[in-house]
Amino acid sequence: MTPEEFRRYGKQVIDWIADYQEKVEAHPVRSQVGPGDVLAALPAHPPEAGEGFAGVLADLDEVIMPGITHWQHPGFYAYFPANASGPSILGELLSAGLGVQGMLWATSPACTELETRVTGWLAELLDLPAELRGNGVIQDSASSACMVAIRAALHRADPAAAREGITGRHTLYVSSQTHSSLEKGARVTGIGAGNVRVVDVDPGTLAMDPAHLDELITADVAAGAVPVLVCATIGTTSTTAIDPVGAIGEVCRRHGVWLHVDAAYAGVAAVCPELRWINDGLAGHADSYATNPHKWLLTNFDCTVLWVADREAVTAALSILPEYLRNRATASGEVVDYSDWQIPLGRRFRALKLWAVIRWYGAEGLREHIRTGVRLADDLAGWIAADPAFEVLPHHPFGLVCFRPRWEGLPDEDADAATLDLMERLNASGDLYLTHTRVGGRVVLRMAIGAPATTGRHVRAAWQKISEAVARA
Amino acid sequence: MTPEEFRRYGKQVIDWIADYQEKVEAHPVRSQVGPGDVLAALPAHPPEAGEGFAGVLADLDEVIMPGITHWQHPGFYAYFPANASGPSILGELLSAGLGVQGMLWATSPACTELETRVTGWLAELLDLPAELRGNGVIQDSASSACMVAIRAALHRADPAAAREGITGRHTLYVSSQTHSSLEKGARVTGIGAGNVRVVDVDPGTLAMDPAHLDELITADVAAGAVPVLVCATIGTTSTTAIDPVGAIGEVCRRHGVWLHVDAAYAGVAAVCPELRWINDGLAGHADSYATNPHKWLLTNFDCTVLWVADREAVTAALSILPEYLRNRATASGEVVDYSDWQIPLGRRFRALKLWAVIRWYGAEGLREHIRTGVRLADDLAGWIAADPAFEVLPHHPFGLVCFRPRWEGLPDEDADAATLDLMERLNASGDLYLTHTRVGGRVVLRMAIGAPATTGRHVRAAWQKISEAVARA
Repeated sequence: MTPEEFRRYGKQVIDWIADYQEKVEAHPVRSQVGPGDVLAALPAHPPEAGEGFAGVLADLDEVIMPGITHWQHPGFYAYFPANASGPSILGELLSAGLGVQGMLWATSPACTELETRVTGWLAELLDLPAELRGNGVIQDSASSACMVAIRAALHRADPAAAREGITGRHTLYVSSQTHSSLEKGARVTGIGAGNVRVVDVDPGTLAMDPAHLDELITADVAAGAVPVLVCATIGTTSTTAIDPVGAIGEVCRRHGVWLHVDAAYAGVAAVCPELRWINDGLAGHADSYATNPHKWLLTNFDCTVLWVADREAVTAALSILPEYLRNRATASGEVVDYSDWQIPLGRRFRALKLWAVIRWYGAEGLREHIRTGVRLADDLAGWIAADPAFEVLPHHPFGLVCFRPRWEGLPDEDADAATLDLMERLNASGDLYLTHTRVGGRVVLRMAIGAPATTGRHVRAAWQKISEAVARA
Repeated sequence: MTPEEFRRYGKQVIDWIADYQEKVEAHPVRSQVGPGDVLAALPAHPPEAGEGFAGVLADLDEVIMPGITHWQHPGFYAYFPANASGPSILGELLSAGLGVQGMLWATSPACTELETRVTGWLAELLDLPAELRGNGVIQDSASSACMVAIRAALHRADPAAAREGITGRHTLYVSSQTHSSLEKGARVTGIGAGNVRVVDVDPGTLAMDPAHLDELITADVAAGAVPVLVCATIGTTSTTAIDPVGAIGEVCRRHGVWLHVDAAYAGVAAVCPELRWINDGLAGHADSYATNPHKWLLTNFDCTVLWVADREAVTAALSILPEYLRNRATASGEVVDYSDWQIPLGRRFRALKLWAVIRWYGAEGLREHIRTGVRLADDLAGWIAADPAFEVLPHHPFGLVCFRPRWEGLPDEDADAATLDLMERLNASGDLYLTHTRVGGRVVLRMAIGAPATTGRHVRAAWQKISEAVARA
């Protein structure tokens, strides 16, 4: 494709995306295709001759779009949002156009140094503790950030493991509310899912119990295990529960265990001074901390930022330097090679999109976006609480509201089935898309607000649809 | 950013990229900044108010570009290429604009089913064995593909490890030429770098010795270790050496060990029927196979395709289903959830770019691109071989040429230092960018051809510059 052709088709694609942004609401939010429908509509064999670009755009509309579940739709409440803002899309486009691979400082110094700068900016915007601020790195996901944290923690707890592998029993500590990536991380790192200890939570707040954590670690140490890492969460996936990071950190310090703080969804809320209390306890305690601008902070997936208090722990755990990667800049020790801070070797220039987002919106714009989500969620929670047919769970000032119809008179099991049926009917309507979780064994609905397209009108309409569906049931 | 603003700035960015493509040659290929230069030119603090987009584009030119090492420059020969073609950039743009996250089939069915289709197309274009064809998945990198393979192989060798973690000694088998990601994978998976056995290579071809592999596995089994995985390589990073996959596969079959084939760079060359012999031995032997369209096949980084013979081995090793991810499509068993085929949970819609590339170029265009690289490398190797001041290493019909000045009369160590000095001078010129490796202990230069911008004129000019620099030295 020549530069002139790229200009022509590129502008068509820009217009296609702008049109999509304008008309996203016209699509059913959840795709209505069945398994295999899209596959069957795609040719079984690749073309022998090149086809040009018009066919791609035509098939995008005819074949791909029916199979899209629209994460940018104002009625998308199913998962935490994946904000794809204009400046972020353009940052991603610039990254693709430059086509650099930033595994080493030397392979494009700006790719590394812009990342150092913008992760520092974000740390300042979130008012993270000083020991984390200078040590940020972009990962593809919070799952990968926790893998890096586990690997670094393992290295600190048992430096011989890099060479000898896992020998003996190593343990991780989570709660029942911790993200499943910790269990996956335990499997992948060879620690084993059976060595993930599940700390009790308060049945009301669903927050981890530091005293029980202390007991579990003490017992494990007495039994000869090596405690590696505790994962505390600020804003759990299921209900946005918040673990008491300071108290957990004290337990970690006492036992010399790495504290990883997973604030994947909620951490970015700290751009607002009035929400900065969510950082309480981080200072002096957190060995690593991760949050995802790619959820609620207007930055396209993928963009998780991981900060670590001790960068040497990470690079000692992950650095490998074969001959073909050796270079003078690396040898000088004056530069950062971010491939030593992640599992894969190669890396995209993801800092561009975070840079574009922070500059376009500024601190003020980012705060306004978070505050809008918080306000809409508060409004929704108020309406649900005022309706006697519903129960709303106490919630934190983020974008997620968890609730359920009371289904008065129905046994619990039937009520749960009725809630799931209701959800399926609502989701099939194409107007809104919810998911569910379980709290205390009971099914509750999750409505996560935060797509930039979502306004008060949409949330009000969604609530009317939900409440009417229950009234009719 | 409104859709109208997105249209305006988006078209500016498209023009910026097209201009960049037209003028990439005007930049020094290797960035000439020093450590900290870019960082110092970026504001220390984030903006309080939003700044608009003009400043981003201005700083892109003034601050970022001097810090870019240009992977798309016709003089970029340092690492295997990272082809950023027009259709691929537009596929990446569409992915960003749609902003869907394809962790589950249900979260955008087209994201999953297009990936199934295009990885099937690529398998057909490469003529991969039937058992691999239907089981393709896109990963971010060959490093991550090998992590998935190790985890799946571990699960097959020791199903208890998912729960109990690594107990006892597990072993991996590589050669001295295998990519460093295998050693990193051994660390990360808890197997331990010390349990990576290094199989001998033929000193001439640098290909793995299957008889020595057999000896090592036999000895390890006798010593009570559990052999997990052998990694064979088609086109090593250092010199594009090719391991005898069939003979290695026979050893693996005899011992029941997983065979992973890393064809990250060279695998895509099999789009050309005359190069399809590189697949010899895959059929019936390879449990997993990975190649990177994001290197030499005109697809932006990141896009590694991993195929596995037994998808159940992968999903059994990696699948985790918390309540908030449960859904009817997953429960039906009729769909693929690709998050169960990778380490992270979330995933971008990367199939769009591979789809756009295959449709734009067609099989014919992809073959022409590979053949151009092969021809240019052959020409270069011929010129070097004809120059008595140089020695060229025997090379495979891909894009990499390894060579060194003879430096007649210099002791080996001084000659190696002279070669490295020569490389630094050439790289500092801004006209071309090379890297080095070591073969038989001696420094050799690596010149990897394959950027779409590179033509015969560029390779000829690079060779003149190299030969004149040696003649002057």
